[in-house]
Amino acid sequence: MTNIGIIGGSGYTGVELLRLLLPRDDVHVSFVSSRANAGTRVDEVFSSLRGFTELTFSDPDDIVASDCDLVFFATPNGTAMSQAPALVENGVKVVDLSADYRIKDIATWEKWYGMTHASPEWIERAVYGLPEINRAEIAGAMLVANPGCYPTAVQLGFMPLLENDLVETDSLIADAKSGVTGAGRGAKVDNLLAEAGDNFKAYGVAGHRHLPEIEQGLRAMTNSPVSLTFTPHLLPLIRGIHSTLYARLKKPTDLQSLFEQRYKDEFFVDVMPAGFYPETRSVRGTNMCRLSVCQPQGRDTVVVMSVEDNLVKGAAGQAVQNMNLMLGFGETTGLALPAMLP
Amino acid sequence: MTNIGIIGGSGYTGVELLRLLLPRDDVHVSFVSSRANAGTRVDEVFSSLRGFTELTFSDPDDIVASDCDLVFFATPNGTAMSQAPALVENGVKVVDLSADYRIKDIATWEKWYGMTHASPEWIERAVYGLPEINRAEIAGAMLVANPGCYPTAVQLGFMPLLENDLVETDSLIADAKSGVTGAGRGAKVDNLLAEAGDNFKAYGVAGHRHLPEIEQGLRAMTNSPVSLTFTPHLLPLIRGIHSTLYARLKKPTDLQSLFEQRYKDEFFVDVMPAGFYPETRSVRGTNMCRLSVCQPQGRDTVVVMSVEDNLVKGAAGQAVQNMNLMLGFGETTGLALPAMLP
Amino acid sequence: MTNIGIIGGSGYTGVELLRLLLPRDDVHVSFVSSRANAGTRVDEVFSSLRGFTELTFSDPDDIVASDCDLVFFATPNGTAMSQAPALVENGVKVVDLSADYRIKDIATWEKWYGMTHASPEWIERAVYGLPEINRAEIAGAMLVANPGCYPTAVQLGFMPLLENDLVETDSLIADAKSGVTGAGRGAKVDNLLAEAGDNFKAYGVAGHRHLPEIEQGLRAMTNSPVSLTFTPHLLPLIRGIHSTLYARLKKPTDLQSLFEQRYKDEFFVDVMPAGFYPETRSVRGTNMCRLSVCQPQGRDTVVVMSVEDNLVKGAAGQAVQNMNLMLGFGETTGLALPAMLP
Amino acid sequence: MTNIGIIGGSGYTGVELLRLLLPRDDVHVSFVSSRANAGTRVDEVFSSLRGFTELTFSDPDDIVASDCDLVFFATPNGTAMSQAPALVENGVKVVDLSADYRIKDIATWEKWYGMTHASPEWIERAVYGLPEINRAEIAGAMLVANPGCYPTAVQLGFMPLLENDLVETDSLIADAKSGVTGAGRGAKVDNLLAEAGDNFKAYGVAGHRHLPEIEQGLRAMTNSPVSLTFTPHLLPLIRGIHSTLYARLKKPTDLQSLFEQRYKDEFFVDVMPAGFYPETRSVRGTNMCRLSVCQPQGRDTVVVMSVEDNLVKGAAGQAVQNMNLMLGFGETTGLALPAMLP
Repeated sequence: MTNIGIIGGSGYTGVELLRLLLPRDDVHVSFVSSRANAGTRVDEVFSSLRGFTELTFSDPDDIVASDCDLVFFATPNGTAMSQAPALVENGVKVVDLSADYRIKDIATWEKWYGMTHASPEWIERAVYGLPEINRAEIAGAMLVANPGCYPTAVQLGFMPLLENDLVETDSLIADAKSGVTGAGRGAKVDNLLAEAGDNFKAYGVAGHRHLPEIEQGLRAMTNSPVSLTFTPHLLPLIRGIHSTLYARLKKPTDLQSLFEQRYKDEFFVDVMPAGFYPETRSVRGTNMCRLSVCQPQGRDTVVVMSVEDNLVKGAAGQAVQNMNLMLGFGETTGLALPAMLP
Repeated sequence: MTNIGIIGGSGYTGVELLRLLLPRDDVHVSFVSSRANAGTRVDEVFSSLRGFTELTFSDPDDIVASDCDLVFFATPNGTAMSQAPALVENGVKVVDLSADYRIKDIATWEKWYGMTHASPEWIERAVYGLPEINRAEIAGAMLVANPGCYPTAVQLGFMPLLENDLVETDSLIADAKSGVTGAGRGAKVDNLLAEAGDNFKAYGVAGHRHLPEIEQGLRAMTNSPVSLTFTPHLLPLIRGIHSTLYARLKKPTDLQSLFEQRYKDEFFVDVMPAGFYPETRSVRGTNMCRLSVCQPQGRDTVVVMSVEDNLVKGAAGQAVQNMNLMLGFGETTGLALPAMLP
Repeated sequence: MTNIGIIGGSGYTGVELLRLLLPRDDVHVSFVSSRANAGTRVDEVFSSLRGFTELTFSDPDDIVASDCDLVFFATPNGTAMSQAPALVENGVKVVDLSADYRIKDIATWEKWYGMTHASPEWIERAVYGLPEINRAEIAGAMLVANPGCYPTAVQLGFMPLLENDLVETDSLIADAKSGVTGAGRGAKVDNLLAEAGDNFKAYGVAGHRHLPEIEQGLRAMTNSPVSLTFTPHLLPLIRGIHSTLYARLKKPTDLQSLFEQRYKDEFFVDVMPAGFYPETRSVRGTNMCRLSVCQPQGRDTVVVMSVEDNLVKGAAGQAVQNMNLMLGFGETTGLALPAMLP
Repeated sequence: MTNIGIIGGSGYTGVELLRLLLPRDDVHVSFVSSRANAGTRVDEVFSSLRGFTELTFSDPDDIVASDCDLVFFATPNGTAMSQAPALVENGVKVVDLSADYRIKDIATWEKWYGMTHASPEWIERAVYGLPEINRAEIAGAMLVANPGCYPTAVQLGFMPLLENDLVETDSLIADAKSGVTGAGRGAKVDNLLAEAGDNFKAYGVAGHRHLPEIEQGLRAMTNSPVSLTFTPHLLPLIRGIHSTLYARLKKPTDLQSLFEQRYKDEFFVDVMPAGFYPETRSVRGTNMCRLSVCQPQGRDTVVVMSVEDNLVKGAAGQAVQNMNLMLGFGETTGLALPAMLP
């Protein structure tokens, strides 16, 4: 039996990891820690898990992670960078769902995240956990930096275009919309149903932390200079990201065929047939990213639509996909269920 | 391999049956029929199923159901009563998700459903498919009448009280609230997001078809005369039923213990700990019914709260639970996953 | 010009008072206080008010209320009981939207609200601000206790039945459902869109503070002993209360006519035609309470449905209605607009 | 007293016109027609209007519009083009909320709307009813073509940039999101709560009828060739449009000041302070359009955010604003109320 630990399990990525892992009989969740809920049964906080676990939240200071095969950090930014290295040095594999190891340039990371990095020497050793780009490296990694939710949807959408040098890369636009779970489970007035419900707005237009992560990823796909305008918006729904991407084409291409070819072997990336557009509910609760590409009016602006569940392919599901690769399970194990629709 | 057919697969119970059955490797869905969508790929209508099926909707006039082990009717009321008997006579087991065989008294059925019953001689042979009451009969049945969504939630909530003769049965009240999928996938102005969203109202107060079905079930639990006031309401959400039940106690009882004992061996009925109340999202997408019981202010009115997903325990999930029993699969096969929360 | 002050203006009842008062040219809002937002422009917190006010939130310690004709307390429970008496003694009329003066029995109040009352001698002098019962007393009052949201909907629904001794009063039931603004604008996990959205549950079943307030009101309508089972539920919408009331009839009555007669002169209470049921959106943003009454199956349980906007007739609108009466304006001034539908 | 008629009053723009007009004492609604609802009381279809009107829907074949001062067409496309000319020739002013007279180029109109225009000679005489551009012409017009919902939000957002030749006009992008009332009150599966709720998707990406209308408007603001990529999306909410506009700057400009200057005299266009972004709920139910402009990272892509209520400034409210101008009322009469928030 494979032992798994979850550090920081009382947020939305924590409960989502539990939803995906508890029904499996090939992995065993040894502990779930939460400072705020230490001593409380997990299924008292999340009644959806009643019948699936007898676990009680551990105090983070009391856990023994050394007998785990893999530990997930579902913690706020700044925790994993202090605690993950010791685990890895003890032979415990780590998937960090926070942003601590996502950005390779330390100065950039420290500017956007507003803190000093506690383990800069580990940044280069961490593997960016987007399997559709880095599958082999992930399979051999000890420390994986799980991508952000927006960066996953945006990179998968632009990738075929940039890899093939088909668009102007200095004027890329990602108009992205996310459900409120992207903001976490913290008690904030802005995320109350009475505030975020029946409403729509942009936020972070002047600068969002996912911008440097996305640009880093896009730069690795092309030799041209990359400049992205990234506008996140808040959707009045719980789960789901829809990214609408815009780029200017440099030459005529069969875009539909390009996307289908690029992703034909990727289980978790689905290119819709021509003329169909993806909807967020079609991936709700699943690890899928669904894409469409089109060229309105035959003009030279290409539009890509990309949807994912921000808590699954955008967080916990991709983390489990990475775990599967790191531990030698089949990549889709525990992740191959259709979405609940309606 | 066990072959399964679905007649009437383009509504919400149809797609829900597919969501529950397609990932299984012990059953094979042979056909899904739909008059309106005949010839169209199933995953074109329900993009959530992309990657899980190559099926095309069949014309109902073209299907060959005789090689199926079991057929589901996910049709409007009035279809199964004409077609199910021939199937059963050919040795094909049937689970009817419509109301055709739910009510034993033909006159009552014809009054509430406004049509003449086409196969009255089969009504008595049909088994009412509430496994928590009728498990053994269901396991041996050829024709199962799958209960209505409200009747499932209400009967499971009242059952421990009536079986033990603890309450006045002539003044029972069920204040029930349902998400909009209870009304089906038909195009009606009342169910538009612009009408049913951000709104709440009662409907069918003067008389709802589920009233006689519920009263029939309650009468079977007690020797006392049963009279129920049943008030359904429309919730601005997609899935979920919450029934709040009221009855006057005839004698003091340990209600919490009563409920826990009654359901201790039922996987799909979960009694919440004292002081906790169930919420619809805790069962979203699952076959669970969660119950709480309490006696406010220690007065003599008992309040029971009962939640279920109207499309799962209230329809397709219970149908699969019945199928499992009828075909000798483990009762929880394919139905033992936690709810997605949030 | 009449001067109005608002103490505690950064919550939902505060902004709702401003929405109703700012467009009027017969009253002038002199100040709005808020400890948390002191010094911030009101329209920076509530962008809906841009163009309608230049006010900045005052520090509650700096306000001069003595030149006001009337002051609203839109504060948490426990504030008005300390500050209102001094104002009234200075000749300033007060409408208190909190619970401080609603309950006449001090011991009951202190038990349910968990604090010692700071001005018990004023409780008897306060007039309960339900104009449909107390219109004349309100018009002459210096201090009005504005009713709770649930109590308004429930009392108006039961009133015709109790005043005429038509029902058993020892087994009344109020199954009430409220939108999330009833819980205020505080940052609580339970009220996040990700928690309260797409969900429905009961809460406070064992005992809610509005129970004693409602029972006090009902007792004043009848000579019989009153016992109410009150079950509040949380609706996944922003505004709106729907109360479904149940009582056993003691004798046959023309219920429709009874209700129409009782409310024929009440502008803000609308009895729906027989066979129609009220919906919360029909009163959204307005001071209306809409009622229906029916007797399902002709049995002896009467069902009353009552809807209101919890922030208007359930709070700020009723407060303005009371203000209109106290200051001699027409009772409907500023309150006679139709709801926005859809 | 001024007499007003409404042709086609059972849709969402019809009920919205009634909500705005019925409380006014300077205009009188003489009739509201509806073929489907002829003979039914208006307040039976829209219970929000109970108490505000005694009107019954007229059969469109029975109405006498000749004694009206002004008639609104709130009809599907293709009706006004047949009926409006006769009214105008009889001296009755007309505001057409449909698309019949919005596009000056007949071939373009016929291509996008798929019908032959019935009164092409009137197209040139119709005035495009966007008062922030055409105020004087509207005031003198007999026939006003009320703009589409998206075109209003997009044109007001781009206008300051194009009028001043500040951006590349051949690569404009409008990523627009609309609530479901934009699709009308027709019974369509796609707009059910169970389909459009808890979901987000793009639609009409390959070509939406508002594209030629928007491009026509933008071309009138500049001498440069205009090419727009327009991507509409469906929001899971009832009212509200948010347009996020992108353009490449040709030279450095103080954008905040530019926008504030352009709209400083426009009551219904509000430029947010720098650093604040508009949200749809801040204009819900009102005739406001709120704008923000920013230049992320100081790069050369300018982002404009524009919100409106699609049924008010995007339809009925703008129609009343036009009526006010055409009949000599104050432009803001009946339209100067703050939004309901929350």
